[in-house]
Amino acid sequence: MVISHSMKIQTEGKGQIINLTPQINDYLFNVEITNGLLCVAVPASTASIITMEYEDGVEKDLRKLFEDLVSSRKKFAHDKALGGKGNGVAHARATLFGPSVTVPFTNRKLALSVWEQIILVDFDLEPRTREVVVTFVGE
Amino acid sequence: MVISHSMKIQTEGKGQIINLTPQINDYLFNVEITNGLLCVAVPASTASIITMEYEDGVEKDLRKLFEDLVSSRKKFAHDKALGGKGNGVAHARATLFGPSVTVPFTNRKLALSVWEQIILVDFDLEPRTREVVVTFVGE
Amino acid sequence: MVISHSMKIQTEGKGQIINLTPQINDYLFNVEITNGLLCVAVPASTASIITMEYEDGVEKDLRKLFEDLVSSRKKFAHDKALGGKGNGVAHARATLFGPSVTVPFTNRKLALSVWEQIILVDFDLEPRTREVVVTFVGE
Repeated sequence: MVISHSMKIQTEGKGQIINLTPQINDYLFNVEITNGLLCVAVPASTASIITMEYEDGVEKDLRKLFEDLVSSRKKFAHDKALGGKGNGVAHARATLFGPSVTVPFTNRKLALSVWEQIILVDFDLEPRTREVVVTFVGE
Repeated sequence: MVISHSMKIQTEGKGQIINLTPQINDYLFNVEITNGLLCVAVPASTASIITMEYEDGVEKDLRKLFEDLVSSRKKFAHDKALGGKGNGVAHARATLFGPSVTVPFTNRKLALSVWEQIILVDFDLEPRTREVVVTFVGE
Repeated sequence: MVISHSMKIQTEGKGQIINLTPQINDYLFNVEITNGLLCVAVPASTASIITMEYEDGVEKDLRKLFEDLVSSRKKFAHDKALGGKGNGVAHARATLFGPSVTVPFTNRKLALSVWEQIILVDFDLEPRTREVVVTFVGE
């Protein structure tokens, strides 16, 4: 069986971190599937789905990590293609962190640790309205 | 229901980026599954499946990112194990970017943004023939 | 159909790499599902599931990569929140490498290359007992 939900989320961009887990657990509590796989995906090439311990310190560390791994001060060919105003840095970060996360669930409980949450990161440079697709496959 | 396809792809290696999406959409148009999860996987420890906006500038930026994150000028223990001619850099990059991507689909439409594509990256140092496994699970 | 197993694994932390593949293949040999998707997940925010060629040189290279990408000498806000003794570096690495890997299988054979293995990496600073959730979805 497959059950799919679509969430619309208003973001600020710039590496903003948004916790999707309460809404996902609400869906999971109400679907007729009790065991299987959850896939959370963002159809976007400048945003990612990740997991993290949702705590202020970790959030700061991750936003610094995004900059350490893919510096916004580098030159991006994608920006040049768009007249120097592009979001090349956001594209590189989104490919690195990936467009989806897959998490198993058993008896409607996600295989996450206590403080671990499923997170949307919007790497784009400006506010965006994002769709997040939440799909449960199982029985 | 599960439907699986195997693609054979000739690559040049060295970080070459190959767009798999047209062939995947062709499979999706013809399977009897309309809703579910797609998993695209490359059975290889020196290649990855990623998503990206398929544009020349982003492609250049990603190939630079591979070098920035895992420099080919470093010493790799795997190369030493193979007499100094190994592909240790390719192994490290493939583990970082991962062997598969999972994407949901609804009414035979993949949850990707307009220009976002599913991509095979071959990190190996020489041309290779790669298998890519395309699996649809759903109903 | 969905079949799920839970493994308990004692780790040393500090980037230790543990090969899960023999046990997973043993599960796969005994489940009634022959085609579908395998998801291997670690419910933890300081550990990851990856794939790699399981060879001593690649293992050394990856442990160096963890340090190159997320240096343990940096200051982490998460550590400060916990009085300077935290495991911020482990959180950042676990988010980067991700909590799960999805691998298709056909006729009970995983889509992995010959030496490629599914691996638990424990990034935490001390020994831990980890749960790994192994889920097969298919028919």
